[in-house]
Amino acid sequence: MAQPLSTRLFAEALGTGILVATVVGSGIMATKLSQDVAIQLLGNTIPTGAILVVLITIFGPVSGAHFNPAVSLVFALRGELPWREFAPYALAQCLGGIAGTVAAHLMFGLAPLVIGTTLRTGPSLWLAEAVATFTLVLAILGSLKVRPESVPVIVGLTITATYWFTASTSFANPAVTVARGFTTSFSGIAIGHVPMFIMAQTVGALIGLAVAGALSFNRR
Amino acid sequence: MAQPLSTRLFAEALGTGILVATVVGSGIMATKLSQDVAIQLLGNTIPTGAILVVLITIFGPVSGAHFNPAVSLVFALRGELPWREFAPYALAQCLGGIAGTVAAHLMFGLAPLVIGTTLRTGPSLWLAEAVATFTLVLAILGSLKVRPESVPVIVGLTITATYWFTASTSFANPAVTVARGFTTSFSGIAIGHVPMFIMAQTVGALIGLAVAGALSFNRR
Amino acid sequence: MAQPLSTRLFAEALGTGILVATVVGSGIMATKLSQDVAIQLLGNTIPTGAILVVLITIFGPVSGAHFNPAVSLVFALRGELPWREFAPYALAQCLGGIAGTVAAHLMFGLAPLVIGTTLRTGPSLWLAEAVATFTLVLAILGSLKVRPESVPVIVGLTITATYWFTASTSFANPAVTVARGFTTSFSGIAIGHVPMFIMAQTVGALIGLAVAGALSFNRR
Amino acid sequence: MAQPLSTRLFAEALGTGILVATVVGSGIMATKLSQDVAIQLLGNTIPTGAILVVLITIFGPVSGAHFNPAVSLVFALRGELPWREFAPYALAQCLGGIAGTVAAHLMFGLAPLVIGTTLRTGPSLWLAEAVATFTLVLAILGSLKVRPESVPVIVGLTITATYWFTASTSFANPAVTVARGFTTSFSGIAIGHVPMFIMAQTVGALIGLAVAGALSFNRR
Repeated sequence: MAQPLSTRLFAEALGTGILVATVVGSGIMATKLSQDVAIQLLGNTIPTGAILVVLITIFGPVSGAHFNPAVSLVFALRGELPWREFAPYALAQCLGGIAGTVAAHLMFGLAPLVIGTTLRTGPSLWLAEAVATFTLVLAILGSLKVRPESVPVIVGLTITATYWFTASTSFANPAVTVARGFTTSFSGIAIGHVPMFIMAQTVGALIGLAVAGALSFNRR
Repeated sequence: MAQPLSTRLFAEALGTGILVATVVGSGIMATKLSQDVAIQLLGNTIPTGAILVVLITIFGPVSGAHFNPAVSLVFALRGELPWREFAPYALAQCLGGIAGTVAAHLMFGLAPLVIGTTLRTGPSLWLAEAVATFTLVLAILGSLKVRPESVPVIVGLTITATYWFTASTSFANPAVTVARGFTTSFSGIAIGHVPMFIMAQTVGALIGLAVAGALSFNRR
Repeated sequence: MAQPLSTRLFAEALGTGILVATVVGSGIMATKLSQDVAIQLLGNTIPTGAILVVLITIFGPVSGAHFNPAVSLVFALRGELPWREFAPYALAQCLGGIAGTVAAHLMFGLAPLVIGTTLRTGPSLWLAEAVATFTLVLAILGSLKVRPESVPVIVGLTITATYWFTASTSFANPAVTVARGFTTSFSGIAIGHVPMFIMAQTVGALIGLAVAGALSFNRR
Repeated sequence: MAQPLSTRLFAEALGTGILVATVVGSGIMATKLSQDVAIQLLGNTIPTGAILVVLITIFGPVSGAHFNPAVSLVFALRGELPWREFAPYALAQCLGGIAGTVAAHLMFGLAPLVIGTTLRTGPSLWLAEAVATFTLVLAILGSLKVRPESVPVIVGLTITATYWFTASTSFANPAVTVARGFTTSFSGIAIGHVPMFIMAQTVGALIGLAVAGALSFNRR
């Protein structure tokens, strides 16, 4: 990565912003158009999976295209992101994500930011978040080893699947979770429930890193 | 591009025509078959994303496969399309697009052309169009730099996402907007609302070009 | 193609059979599970697009993976299929297709073959079939020139789109049309309406071949 | 495969576990969110196809990514899996699969394991399972010969199609069938109906192997 840190932080913020705008915006669109919640989730899943492929393809060579503090943590632990850059990366992701919520709200004529109120708590959902983030980290590290150019598609497909098989619809990303804490729409989460989600995501990511090591995904 | 201009204009017109026939035709099909608007949009999104991959793959080596005056403008500004060819490109795209509307109407047994009446106006939708076109231009220039052979899939996935996360369902294309101004079906737009959409798309495209420059997507 | 003719005919019959089993079977499944016709068409579209990618990938190196007399005709006219093999190819495709209808019926506990009764006739639908087959031929010849390994995905995506934007839901294949003449389920067609569909498909294919020539898709 | 057997068995168990968690979990999610059974099946199909691409990509180089005793049997018969490893592979797949059911249940706050009660029996469904597994084996062996790096996508698309065109919604996998025998949710099967499904799958796999031989898919 020949890019200066400022360019990389811009890419992380912009990428996370477009990702969150997609998650929040498509959720608003879906609930406007249908009463069937499965169709709403489909209308939330397909755009999210699609934009992930796009964003990771174009921003990967710039900043690594983490868009996710849990992923940045994993790369820091692997020695592939300098520790001194971890906090700036995470901050850029969170701020970019919140800007994405604002963008989605403005496009749909809503107030820029509101405090999230959707109840998402309890051991089942925390387990779901851990499983989702575990699967995401395993998919990233596995595809990175096998065929690096497949990472964008693999991440898009992983999130497509985890949206449906984890009971929490797979936030799997602390920055996106924070950003979703500022909307009361389809994809929102009560702001008070954000910390436990982030904790579960971190645990899942660390287990994913450990299992990837057991499977030699770490060796290049 | 070894092809003569006439061949390239034919490819731009034909490609934009098939694109618009898909957008308008699948919209008519979807509203005939379902009452659920989210399912209608899904039945509009999936064919549009799919045909974009096809059209950009096969026409890319012929004409560049812009099918979009905003994209042609960006390539002219980058010095990759001669300025004297910009107007012919845009005209071929608009005429081809209108022919696509005619084709869709005839296949479904409707009058060839009607004046669009669907109200699509206001700052939120203009913002949405700017965001959609910004995202499209960024995706094109980014993927073109990283992996040119991925452009068709990246554009298909970008439009798949923007259809859902922008409040306007992402026209993101002046020629397609003009062509959709001549139908009263699902994908139509009131003819008087076309100019502001095109202005918003142009603004979004220019910001996309600037941001691509900041991310060094312009250097090859 | 080093394979003997008998092996290639077997591949064409088997491939067309699996294709038709998918088209007919998923149509039966879809109408069993939903009342919403757009969802039924989605449940018919997605499996059809998916299996086309699979079948063309695995049978392409064996027989060319036409599964479609209109496509075999185009390759014969291009001099890439010996004329003496055209009739055997078309016959294998039709017989394989009918066997696919039988397989679908038996899996769903229906009578092996029945005479189709679904009315599909009139100029609009014939135009739709011509447009669909034109688009298919253009997509095949274009992707074959640009990037041969993309043909399976391009064909899958083309049919995904044409299912929705042509008013006839895109049969675009004489052998499949014949095979669909023997079912009264979702994807059936009245047996008496088959000939005009085949004629329209042939016209569309020939125009596709001519346009491909104008675009230099024929030169390798 | 330079990996020791223990690592490969871990990969087979983990991969089958994530696969079954996706199948069972997305089925639970889908029935919670919609009344329309076709939408439920769509919400079951899309994640399953997606996760298969992910899992085969990342675990392929580790263990071969069979996740399926019928596939392991085929590779043993082809001499590509030592016979002494067949039983350990199948056992790891079954245990991993059952763990996947447990994980799905816990994420949705259900009892870890229950005895399946969904009636799935009779000649039509057995034929469907044989056809599904036949198609799967043919697709694996065909794509493995033509373009090995396409196997993950080809398998994902094959299962996407067979979910819809076979009347049984395509279990096509003895380990997954066993694991689905321990849930009463959308994707469950009465435990007593499991053996006949496995028998039909085995027959289908063997016919697939034979046909692949006739098509020279076995020669490398």
